[in-house]
Amino acid sequence: MQIAIPLFDRFTALDAVGPYEVLSRLPGARVDFVVGEPGVVRTDTRMLGVHVDLSLDDVRTPDVVVVPGGIGTRTALADERLLDWVRAAHEGSQYTTSVCTGSLILAAAGVLDGVDATTHWLATDILASLGARPVDERFVERGKIITAAGVSAGLDMALRLAERIAGADVAQAIQLAIEYDPEPPFDSGSPRKATPAVVDLAMAGQRAEAQAAVES
Amino acid sequence: MQIAIPLFDRFTALDAVGPYEVLSRLPGARVDFVVGEPGVVRTDTRMLGVHVDLSLDDVRTPDVVVVPGGIGTRTALADERLLDWVRAAHEGSQYTTSVCTGSLILAAAGVLDGVDATTHWLATDILASLGARPVDERFVERGKIITAAGVSAGLDMALRLAERIAGADVAQAIQLAIEYDPEPPFDSGSPRKATPAVVDLAMAGQRAEAQAAVES
Repeated sequence: MQIAIPLFDRFTALDAVGPYEVLSRLPGARVDFVVGEPGVVRTDTRMLGVHVDLSLDDVRTPDVVVVPGGIGTRTALADERLLDWVRAAHEGSQYTTSVCTGSLILAAAGVLDGVDATTHWLATDILASLGARPVDERFVERGKIITAAGVSAGLDMALRLAERIAGADVAQAIQLAIEYDPEPPFDSGSPRKATPAVVDLAMAGQRAEAQAAVES
Repeated sequence: MQIAIPLFDRFTALDAVGPYEVLSRLPGARVDFVVGEPGVVRTDTRMLGVHVDLSLDDVRTPDVVVVPGGIGTRTALADERLLDWVRAAHEGSQYTTSVCTGSLILAAAGVLDGVDATTHWLATDILASLGARPVDERFVERGKIITAAGVSAGLDMALRLAERIAGADVAQAIQLAIEYDPEPPFDSGSPRKATPAVVDLAMAGQRAEAQAAVES
């Protein structure tokens, strides 16, 4: 089983690494990172670089596609080569999935027209404008398409996907192997739960990140 | 504030990327990945390569140290250059932390002698044999030393660390930015919660990984 994760400049690391950490542990599965131009792909913060050997052309018919998000989606949404790749890969895939604003890329490729989907809580309007029907859930499974909410939601989505592929025992053994028994010290991971001051802080951080991406 | 994450061959990606994703969002903070020999460092699965520019010698006095784990710790425990670096960095650090079997490296460096600490649930005996006092908690904070349990526990630990560094509002805004509102589809993330069959599967997977690391 071949699982392809397409990367692009300024992707969010955990969007990709969360599902990778789960899915790479599936028996007989291989996770291949792919990119337009092989080399070093830097994350949204610029602090982390992933070395990618394979180009989009090297992996044409993956069994599973996982599209991460990040501030770089703003550029990636207009990357016709990436969108063509997503469309073609989706045609033959067993599962087409996304994390965070990766669903915007799926939508821009036409994969989510009229389909229930989710994204990062700050990107719901954009997702709707691209033709999908936003649903406020941790991950949304509709046929072979599974979209996850922001960043860390890729872990939860990937465990469900692992169950679909290899059964509940294997998925649960992976959860145990990565000791995913979450105990966050706060309960502010959703805009429904965070205080208004915390929501404001998070939105200000996102604006600063977007500004930095434009200026660089 | 400089946060250093030392990498080594066969580290576990999420051990490093979880804390990176949280701590890189601290205002004014920079996360620097460091390694013995700059270049591409591959993870335990060999499926992911991280490009690291900085050597251990380039970052001598970080404010915060985060040591990840992985099957590669078996070799890293005997890497005197890495252990020397950990000892020296710990001397001047504000916080010295680990994720998963990263605590074995801290222990081998002498940082955990007689100190309460945690690690991956499969590595508790080794942690004890290296002089630390294993505690069965998601993360264990003792003075400036914080150790986290297996793999995904680095997210929880890093949010606590973010609070210590920048206050609860900032830490909660980071939790919201990465939408860390976990909803795993199963409740098998701890050996106390998983079925015996699932525990056996996870242990078999770990043995296979260890075998593969020896053979390659």
